[in-house]
Amino acid sequence: MLIDWTSIALQIYDKIKAKVSMMDFKPTLWAIMVWNSKASLRYIKQKKKWAEYTGINFKLLELESDISEKKLLKHIEKFNEDDNISGYIVQLPLPKHIDEQKVIDAIKPEKDVDWFHPINQWKILIWDKSGLAPCTPAWVIKILKSLDIEFHWMIACVIGRSNIVWKPVTALLINKWATVITCNSSTPHLSDFTKKADIVVVAVWKPELLKENMLKKWSIIIDVWFTVVDDKIYWDAQTDSIDKAWHKITPVPGWVWPLTVAMLLKNTFKAHKNQIKEKK
Amino acid sequence: MLIDWTSIALQIYDKIKAKVSMMDFKPTLWAIMVWNSKASLRYIKQKKKWAEYTGINFKLLELESDISEKKLLKHIEKFNEDDNISGYIVQLPLPKHIDEQKVIDAIKPEKDVDWFHPINQWKILIWDKSGLAPCTPAWVIKILKSLDIEFHWMIACVIGRSNIVWKPVTALLINKWATVITCNSSTPHLSDFTKKADIVVVAVWKPELLKENMLKKWSIIIDVWFTVVDDKIYWDAQTDSIDKAWHKITPVPGWVWPLTVAMLLKNTFKAHKNQIKEKK
Repeated sequence: MLIDWTSIALQIYDKIKAKVSMMDFKPTLWAIMVWNSKASLRYIKQKKKWAEYTGINFKLLELESDISEKKLLKHIEKFNEDDNISGYIVQLPLPKHIDEQKVIDAIKPEKDVDWFHPINQWKILIWDKSGLAPCTPAWVIKILKSLDIEFHWMIACVIGRSNIVWKPVTALLINKWATVITCNSSTPHLSDFTKKADIVVVAVWKPELLKENMLKKWSIIIDVWFTVVDDKIYWDAQTDSIDKAWHKITPVPGWVWPLTVAMLLKNTFKAHKNQIKEKK
Repeated sequence: MLIDWTSIALQIYDKIKAKVSMMDFKPTLWAIMVWNSKASLRYIKQKKKWAEYTGINFKLLELESDISEKKLLKHIEKFNEDDNISGYIVQLPLPKHIDEQKVIDAIKPEKDVDWFHPINQWKILIWDKSGLAPCTPAWVIKILKSLDIEFHWMIACVIGRSNIVWKPVTALLINKWATVITCNSSTPHLSDFTKKADIVVVAVWKPELLKENMLKKWSIIIDVWFTVVDDKIYWDAQTDSIDKAWHKITPVPGWVWPLTVAMLLKNTFKAHKNQIKEKK
C-alpha cells in the first residue's frame, strides 16, 4: 500500500480550517526572511498558500541581507511582544555575519512554531507535551498513528542521526514505548536491523539504500528525503523494488512538504490558543 | 574481566586533586538539602568526603522542610550571583508544596553541576560540549572509553528509557556514531537484541533480567542499578552466570556511586574554571 500523505495533510488543514472559522480573533503567522534564496521563496509560498487555506493570516517580513544582528534581534523582540502575532518563523540559513543560535535563543518559545528553540527541543526529550511540536518528526508519528499502530510492541529502525529530525523521531518513539534501533551511515550489517523492524524510518541521504530484501514482511517504510545526483532524484528507499502488497510505504515521487507545512500550521493554531488562554 | 570502576573513579579524583592543588582560588561546591532523609544524608556524606579529598570546598545548606517555595528560590538567586560558589546541587526530592521544575529552572545552567537544567540536558541532545555533563550517563561513557572502544562501529543495546539517565546515554552514544538499540521492559524477544550488541547497558529495575545466554561473546555489560526484594539486592544482570573470560562486566556487589560523585566533582571543577575565564 502507498501511504497517502497528501490526504493526511489535507485532513489536518481542514480540521484547522474548521476550528479557525469559529474564532473571532484569528491566528497570525509571520515569516522573517533575511537570506533571499530561490528555495526559501518556494517554501514561503507554500506556507502562505496553506495558511490562507486554513484561515490563518500569513505575513512576510523581508529584510536586507546586510541587516545587522542587533537590528534583527530588535525585530524579534517586537515580534515576541506583539499580541497580534501567534507565531513566527525565521527562515534559515541566515547570512554569515549573524549568529544563528543567538537569534534562535531570542525567539519566545511560545511563538517558536518551527521548533528551533532549545526549550521546545528539550520538552520533546522529556515527553512534556506543553511545548510546540517538531514539524517533521511530528508528521512521522502522525502517519504512523493514521495506520492505527500500537507503538508499545513495535520495533522501529531509524536510519540517520541528525539533531533536528532524527534524534527527535527517536525520542518520540522511545517515549511511546517502542523499541528503537538508531542506525547511521556506518552501521555494520544494516539489514540485520532493518529486517527486525516493523517500522523503518530512513533519512541518510544515500540513494536507494533501502531495498526489498532488507525488509521484514508487513513492515512500514517512511522515506523522508532524497538526494539529487546528475539532475535525477533518488530517495533513500528503492521504492520500485519494494512490494506494495507486503509493505506500507510513503509514495515516490512524493513530497513530504505538505505534511511539514500542516504541522507548522497546527503549531501556529496551538500557539495562538495558548496565548489567548494565558491572557484570560 | 570485572571492570574496576573504583580505580577509574580514583583516577578522576586524583586528576582533579592535582589540578585544584595548583589553583589559588579553589572551587566550592554547595548542597542545598530541604528534605531530610536518611538516603539523602548518606549521599551528601559521600559527596563531602570526595570533594574534600580533591581539595574542593564542600558546604551544606540545610533548610527546614516547611520552607516556602519563594524563600527557597531566594536562596537559589543568591547562589547564582555569589562568585564564591562554583556550583551547587539541590538534593531531590523536594517537599510536595514546592514545584520542583520551577526550582530546577531557576538554577543558573553554568552552576548546575547535577545536570538538571533544561539547557544542559538539551546540549547533550545536540552534542554541544560547552554544557556540564550528565553524571551517570557520562560515567557510562567514561568506563567504555577506559576500555579503548571505537564507538563508530559498535552496536550498543540500552535497556531502559528514563529521562534522566537512559535517554542521555542513548543520545551520547548516537552522537559518537554508535548504532544504538533502545529497549524497554516490554520489548518483545529481548535477547534478539542483546545478542547483537557489543555493549549492553542495563537499568530497568528487573532483578537478574540479563543472563549469559542472552549475550554475544566478547560483549561489555554495564549494569547500573539494582532492586531490593525481601531485603536482598538484585542487580539487573545475573552477574554470577556471566562468564568473565568472555565478557567485561561491572562488578557486583559493587556500587556505581563513586563514579557518579567523580563526575559531579569534575563538573564542579569545569564550572569553576569556566566562571574564572568569564570574569577575565
